[in-house]
Amino acid sequence: MILRIDRLGAELPPPSDPDPEGANAVQELMGGRFGEMSTLMNYTFQSFNFRGRQSVRPFYDLIANIAAEEYGHIELVAAAINTMLTGASPAANGKPPGDALAAMKGRGNPQHFIAGGQGALCQDSNGKPWTGDYVFSSGDLVEDLTHNFFLETGARNNKLKVYEMVDHPAARALTGYLLVRGGVHQIAYARAVELLTGADLTSMFPTPRIPTDKIPESQKHIDKGLHKILYRFSPDDYNELTAVFRGPHPETGEELEVQDGPPEGALPRDLPPQPAVFAPDYAPEEIAEIAQRLRKHAGLPDQPTAAVANGGESAADKAAR
Amino acid sequence: MILRIDRLGAELPPPSDPDPEGANAVQELMGGRFGEMSTLMNYTFQSFNFRGRQSVRPFYDLIANIAAEEYGHIELVAAAINTMLTGASPAANGKPPGDALAAMKGRGNPQHFIAGGQGALCQDSNGKPWTGDYVFSSGDLVEDLTHNFFLETGARNNKLKVYEMVDHPAARALTGYLLVRGGVHQIAYARAVELLTGADLTSMFPTPRIPTDKIPESQKHIDKGLHKILYRFSPDDYNELTAVFRGPHPETGEELEVQDGPPEGALPRDLPPQPAVFAPDYAPEEIAEIAQRLRKHAGLPDQPTAAVANGGESAADKAAR
Amino acid sequence: MILRIDRLGAELPPPSDPDPEGANAVQELMGGRFGEMSTLMNYTFQSFNFRGRQSVRPFYDLIANIAAEEYGHIELVAAAINTMLTGASPAANGKPPGDALAAMKGRGNPQHFIAGGQGALCQDSNGKPWTGDYVFSSGDLVEDLTHNFFLETGARNNKLKVYEMVDHPAARALTGYLLVRGGVHQIAYARAVELLTGADLTSMFPTPRIPTDKIPESQKHIDKGLHKILYRFSPDDYNELTAVFRGPHPETGEELEVQDGPPEGALPRDLPPQPAVFAPDYAPEEIAEIAQRLRKHAGLPDQPTAAVANGGESAADKAAR
Amino acid sequence: MILRIDRLGAELPPPSDPDPEGANAVQELMGGRFGEMSTLMNYTFQSFNFRGRQSVRPFYDLIANIAAEEYGHIELVAAAINTMLTGASPAANGKPPGDALAAMKGRGNPQHFIAGGQGALCQDSNGKPWTGDYVFSSGDLVEDLTHNFFLETGARNNKLKVYEMVDHPAARALTGYLLVRGGVHQIAYARAVELLTGADLTSMFPTPRIPTDKIPESQKHIDKGLHKILYRFSPDDYNELTAVFRGPHPETGEELEVQDGPPEGALPRDLPPQPAVFAPDYAPEEIAEIAQRLRKHAGLPDQPTAAVANGGESAADKAAR
Amino acid sequence: MILRIDRLGAELPPPSDPDPEGANAVQELMGGRFGEMSTLMNYTFQSFNFRGRQSVRPFYDLIANIAAEEYGHIELVAAAINTMLTGASPAANGKPPGDALAAMKGRGNPQHFIAGGQGALCQDSNGKPWTGDYVFSSGDLVEDLTHNFFLETGARNNKLKVYEMVDHPAARALTGYLLVRGGVHQIAYARAVELLTGADLTSMFPTPRIPTDKIPESQKHIDKGLHKILYRFSPDDYNELTAVFRGPHPETGEELEVQDGPPEGALPRDLPPQPAVFAPDYAPEEIAEIAQRLRKHAGLPDQPTAAVANGGESAADKAAR
Amino acid sequence: MILRIDRLGAELPPPSDPDPEGANAVQELMGGRFGEMSTLMNYTFQSFNFRGRQSVRPFYDLIANIAAEEYGHIELVAAAINTMLTGASPAANGKPPGDALAAMKGRGNPQHFIAGGQGALCQDSNGKPWTGDYVFSSGDLVEDLTHNFFLETGARNNKLKVYEMVDHPAARALTGYLLVRGGVHQIAYARAVELLTGADLTSMFPTPRIPTDKIPESQKHIDKGLHKILYRFSPDDYNELTAVFRGPHPETGEELEVQDGPPEGALPRDLPPQPAVFAPDYAPEEIAEIAQRLRKHAGLPDQPTAAVANGGESAADKAAR
Repeated sequence: MILRIDRLGAELPPPSDPDPEGANAVQELMGGRFGEMSTLMNYTFQSFNFRGRQSVRPFYDLIANIAAEEYGHIELVAAAINTMLTGASPAANGKPPGDALAAMKGRGNPQHFIAGGQGALCQDSNGKPWTGDYVFSSGDLVEDLTHNFFLETGARNNKLKVYEMVDHPAARALTGYLLVRGGVHQIAYARAVELLTGADLTSMFPTPRIPTDKIPESQKHIDKGLHKILYRFSPDDYNELTAVFRGPHPETGEELEVQDGPPEGALPRDLPPQPAVFAPDYAPEEIAEIAQRLRKHAGLPDQPTAAVANGGESAADKAAR
Repeated sequence: MILRIDRLGAELPPPSDPDPEGANAVQELMGGRFGEMSTLMNYTFQSFNFRGRQSVRPFYDLIANIAAEEYGHIELVAAAINTMLTGASPAANGKPPGDALAAMKGRGNPQHFIAGGQGALCQDSNGKPWTGDYVFSSGDLVEDLTHNFFLETGARNNKLKVYEMVDHPAARALTGYLLVRGGVHQIAYARAVELLTGADLTSMFPTPRIPTDKIPESQKHIDKGLHKILYRFSPDDYNELTAVFRGPHPETGEELEVQDGPPEGALPRDLPPQPAVFAPDYAPEEIAEIAQRLRKHAGLPDQPTAAVANGGESAADKAAR
Repeated sequence: MILRIDRLGAELPPPSDPDPEGANAVQELMGGRFGEMSTLMNYTFQSFNFRGRQSVRPFYDLIANIAAEEYGHIELVAAAINTMLTGASPAANGKPPGDALAAMKGRGNPQHFIAGGQGALCQDSNGKPWTGDYVFSSGDLVEDLTHNFFLETGARNNKLKVYEMVDHPAARALTGYLLVRGGVHQIAYARAVELLTGADLTSMFPTPRIPTDKIPESQKHIDKGLHKILYRFSPDDYNELTAVFRGPHPETGEELEVQDGPPEGALPRDLPPQPAVFAPDYAPEEIAEIAQRLRKHAGLPDQPTAAVANGGESAADKAAR
Repeated sequence: MILRIDRLGAELPPPSDPDPEGANAVQELMGGRFGEMSTLMNYTFQSFNFRGRQSVRPFYDLIANIAAEEYGHIELVAAAINTMLTGASPAANGKPPGDALAAMKGRGNPQHFIAGGQGALCQDSNGKPWTGDYVFSSGDLVEDLTHNFFLETGARNNKLKVYEMVDHPAARALTGYLLVRGGVHQIAYARAVELLTGADLTSMFPTPRIPTDKIPESQKHIDKGLHKILYRFSPDDYNELTAVFRGPHPETGEELEVQDGPPEGALPRDLPPQPAVFAPDYAPEEIAEIAQRLRKHAGLPDQPTAAVANGGESAADKAAR
Repeated sequence: MILRIDRLGAELPPPSDPDPEGANAVQELMGGRFGEMSTLMNYTFQSFNFRGRQSVRPFYDLIANIAAEEYGHIELVAAAINTMLTGASPAANGKPPGDALAAMKGRGNPQHFIAGGQGALCQDSNGKPWTGDYVFSSGDLVEDLTHNFFLETGARNNKLKVYEMVDHPAARALTGYLLVRGGVHQIAYARAVELLTGADLTSMFPTPRIPTDKIPESQKHIDKGLHKILYRFSPDDYNELTAVFRGPHPETGEELEVQDGPPEGALPRDLPPQPAVFAPDYAPEEIAEIAQRLRKHAGLPDQPTAAVANGGESAADKAAR
Repeated sequence: MILRIDRLGAELPPPSDPDPEGANAVQELMGGRFGEMSTLMNYTFQSFNFRGRQSVRPFYDLIANIAAEEYGHIELVAAAINTMLTGASPAANGKPPGDALAAMKGRGNPQHFIAGGQGALCQDSNGKPWTGDYVFSSGDLVEDLTHNFFLETGARNNKLKVYEMVDHPAARALTGYLLVRGGVHQIAYARAVELLTGADLTSMFPTPRIPTDKIPESQKHIDKGLHKILYRFSPDDYNELTAVFRGPHPETGEELEVQDGPPEGALPRDLPPQPAVFAPDYAPEEIAEIAQRLRKHAGLPDQPTAAVANGGESAADKAAR
């Protein structure tokens, strides 16, 4: 089971100039063969299918725990795509009858607008849906770990390329962060293979051969040590990570660390409605009224109880003062 | 972000007679159009893409929170499949050279054995991979909720049919539980639609028309009230569920309840190695030795720090005495 | 536009011993690359996309009209599959809780039971969905016609093989009929190519090389001349068929004929409910009562106004006496 | 079986400025998950698979009859796409050797030109083929109807978005019409669910929340009452529609009506050859000559016997004077 | 088994202006239903599956041998795509951190850059992967040959359209060559069908109806007689080609010829690194150094032993002087 | 370009008891994600897309040359499947009208019989077609090589499992051989990665952890040294293999060797016609007669010029005496 926390792993900038072609490129990091859906679902299924886990628990804990972090990565990719699509249709009066989407014709992924509400799709940059065929779960521990190292390598490659293609601030904040965190997972799996087989995969780092610290948007995360920390994404479980994720960082030589609990992360932004695509409604104010009545009826405060990055204080915050 | 808890939503029986054809049927509940991958990913993407969430937070909280529960459902489906496949190849000496899988030829999904390690696949009962095309996230709140109600209806249909087709104890424990919990989600979405539009979808319950309480394996969960409780799967967030999930249960008339935190659930079982398929290794004892050394090296106790259903006390439990 | 007639192109026998594996094989004739969905949709799209149709109307009329017949073929394939699946779950008391589908575990296509209501799927014999990728519509008339000749050849091959594999009476009635009608289409396209290019494709008949009249189940249709008649499936249109569908039948030498209007065909059977799969409901009698009330309310007679093969007289028939 | 009528459900404007990107967007209404291929094939398969139809015939008749109308909708979508692609390659001398398609490089769906003859494809707006996986046919009447209501809702959403994105006159004429007719189907299914379960889905109208009568291109159809009429697309069958399609229109309160026979519709246009893509031939005049000879040989008049919107009188019309 | 020769079937021009949209269009000739992957794999599987080959060896030899040529065609299509993508990212300093791919955002197939290293993909022009579903291998000789004739016809259509759409010199050199060679295969299969059935398919040539000799880029190959020669791509096998590939060329009347051995072809170009996409490395000079050391260690000469079109002499050539 | 040699890489036994379920399992080695289509096409595309190949030619030569061997592997997998399907329908009188395929209903892959002529399909063991999505060609040399090592590891896993599941002599001969040859490729890629990065992947051997020499059917190939030889599959090219494929075998310590030219291999068997599926014809003797006439007409000897394993001497052999 999981508990969900309504925070993002990293902060993204607010919407600025919309970038539908860029958003389409970022989809590769969501639904591509090496996108975050793939890292999430590979490690998740491997942890589900893990046999004899007590006997080799440090490895089970490693895979299960990294799976947990990946959920936060599909979340962040989605947030970046949503940010980049915000404003692509006019916010005011952007409703049919009209041609609010005319400027989007022939740009980016048409389903961002027609099928979706200017939101992330479970597809790659060619509009091809992610498929369960991308999940590799052989049950053979060494083989699964080798796969995972390779998967992270391919993922790093794709993140670097999206970095180079899309300079939208949200895309850069995203890739800058994912490169650091994916790098940690790449190390973790390489170390795991090394410990089981003696093969020193860490001599392959960095792969692709550009050091992550050359990426300006990664730098601030490296400064905070995020390149050498594996977070334990669980209240009480997966404690044996420390038996695998240890030793020197392959590039910097610093000692790898396991840290309990998730990173602090950042509050999500509440992205504005896009009425031209009926998100969250053709007339958002009408459903807002209903929600307000329901809140009242349920004894909830007038203000939302939850904070968002762009939303001032939440009712809870206020009450806490 | 999520925190992961190493417990299952419900208890499953230990492996008994293997049932590869049954395991294949259960795959429909994993990777079918109406399987748990679909419920998980639909609600997850809808929550990621939710615009104007502060203004209608009770609905955002509802979708985001149910998404969290669904993760536990793909986990439980996987556990059932793994249980049903355990023992399908001989545990002892079941290694090549030999014909340990000969009895599985022409039975069930061949990839359970050839591609996987007698474990769950991200596929449906026809061996067709789950696809991102199954994700519906229009951004239009009423439409997404309507979809979700329909999705839960289709899911309930498929669970009932798998119940009828597969009488393996693990499959029955699984479907008995999912029918109850899916029923709660079906109610939640129906109520949400009702509150927003006035359409009384709850008059459609139960749909399909067989009451869940006729299912013996569901009964014990109903006795505990699981049919009227929505768990809040978060340490601190998604508090506005109460504004939507309220009022009478459409079938029993009881008052619906929101409960903080996940259900207690059950410890997972540590399923035995299946060396014929190299899960977790051709020679599991060798990697166990390595793990033991690593544990020691990391200052961890000799016994695994985590408990499993079939594993006696964990080191942590022992220490706690 | 189309008008629909509630009759089948040919008579099928009533349900007898259910044959789920046979029904799965017959799916190839529905959703396979050379199945009836393919013939239907290829000719339909070609007719939609036909440019300069006035200038070469006999050919437009030919393609558009054969497209119309193919609709009746997917209908007949579906009817055969439904017939073969009837009774595969017990009609009485075959409802959950129970194991009414246990005997179907590991037999045929599991989605016939889990996803569907013991009904036809839009899939091939491997459970792979039909895809729009099977539609060929180049716009080049000679090329489209060549394709169509080849498509009918592949279709004939597959029908013969299904004939050999499945001896269920419904499958045999189906293939016996489709072989005759598909043969007519094969001739039509071959003749069309010949008239446009001079290539005598008709010298390739029969292909595969077994004469249709060796198939006992085809014989009765041949006796009625169905092997040399092209029906004009339209009240008033597609009259220029006669300019192409003419000359000697390539195998028998008889003169080809165009006949106005559809064949007489046969009343469909009303297949019985299968409550184990909730088709049409878990409790069919309840919805029947509602329907009866609605009928009355609408001033319709108590008896259904439509006749079915197994249903005695319809209200209309009775009134007509 | 069906009879085909060579008329369109509504009139489309003649080709004007070609719009390949717009044509690509319109493909979503053909082959998208919520496109007309999906509505057509869902209702068609549901009608084929309908068990116990005599006992609940009003519902069978409803689904079977709406299926028939949908055929006319894929026809109209195709006609719009063909119209929008006409002229995208030069009509005169637009043949290889040359670069007649150079201006189309990187615009819209490349397969419109390379695979097809500037004609409609069985794909969505991402070039992904329609798949039989989109067909839902559970056999459970209430569930199938609920699905259909949801499907029409998604379809309405997509039509509105295509309306906003593509202002080509053919696209607007198409969406204006489909919104009205799809709205009728949405009502029909909502009413059917209501009659069977008591759930008042009609209180959800309009969904998405913009009233159709705000769409200028829908207005003329509304003026003719097309928003409250269900046509009976059959010479003699499906007469029990009236038992379900009745009562007040959910938005206007007008009484719903069933009308015998199809709408008058409009003659299709004969779209001009596009020799650059060999549609209908590299040298259309050569095959026209052959056709003319065949006509003569068959005793047909020199002029085509069929009328087209842009073709002056047909031979039949002339004769009728 | 095969032996591979490091030469291309035809010469391609060196990289010039990059053309990502053109490269995407050319992908149709690689991974489209009628692309070279399809011709290669259809004939390859047909030859593998050929039963009773001794009894009809001339036909087996024909199919098996044409399969061999097709390998050279996927090679040439790839070379053209690679040529057209060269230079699309800056060669110098085109590495992250930077935005070396920014100009490629929204142009052509994003996976050319993100997933690949500015190289060919196994996809069509819509980014849809080639699929084994495109392989037709019925085992029925006449039917397989009919299919192959049709496949070559569709392939010729698509090559002509790509010719018209893409005027990049590499694309034109490619299509000019493929049209000639595909034409030979089209003739070969037509002749084979004719010899087996008497159907004179050659009267359909050219199809599409434009003669290949109107294509300027085909002319030089025709001048060398490549339109009437079938090469025997084997040291010693497939000698019975001559029994089928004989008689007059359907367009020119010249006698068809079988020639032993492959065409002379051309040396491939060694396309330059594209460091922005890490092809062959982020720092190509580093791996070059390693390779040089390995060469030395293995006793190989300092210069590469193999010649390339743009590479001056190879070590072998030099030694040969 | 390639030259094709009409020999198999290894000898397969003659057809014995047909094994359709086994043949279906073997399909995983053809069209599965880790099947031979994948190894073939990955290395082939990587070689096509290789940039800067002169500077790192030993690596280019390695990939290009292994690609060549893989062609022989899809050939051998196909031969095994064909062998295993031979006799599944009765050879004599096994033609329609009849039920020659009745015994195959519900066994194995139905398309082996309905779509194919008891021959290999381009699919995996679930009847899912191979897809171009399985091709990884990033252009980054280290990454491509890492992928290839992982791909061979997955392939070895699947071969071992098919070995265990299918004991048909043809399947065992196939897997025994492929395990040895795939092992060589696994070593080659591991060594290549080691040479470029210093990572000692060879310490991971064997992976999965069972030594190949425990497989009896592999033993005879190991005895001939096939586990340490890389064949150079080219008349003159790919000579720089020796710079990479060198050093000690990771398991045995023997020195790795490069050998010029392909292995001797074995003559293919001419598998008998299966007239029930029209392979090569409904009446094979008729087309044999035609072929004989063509042979004569072309001046070829009466006997086939090519030898087959089961065919006595070829005309060529005879002449050579």
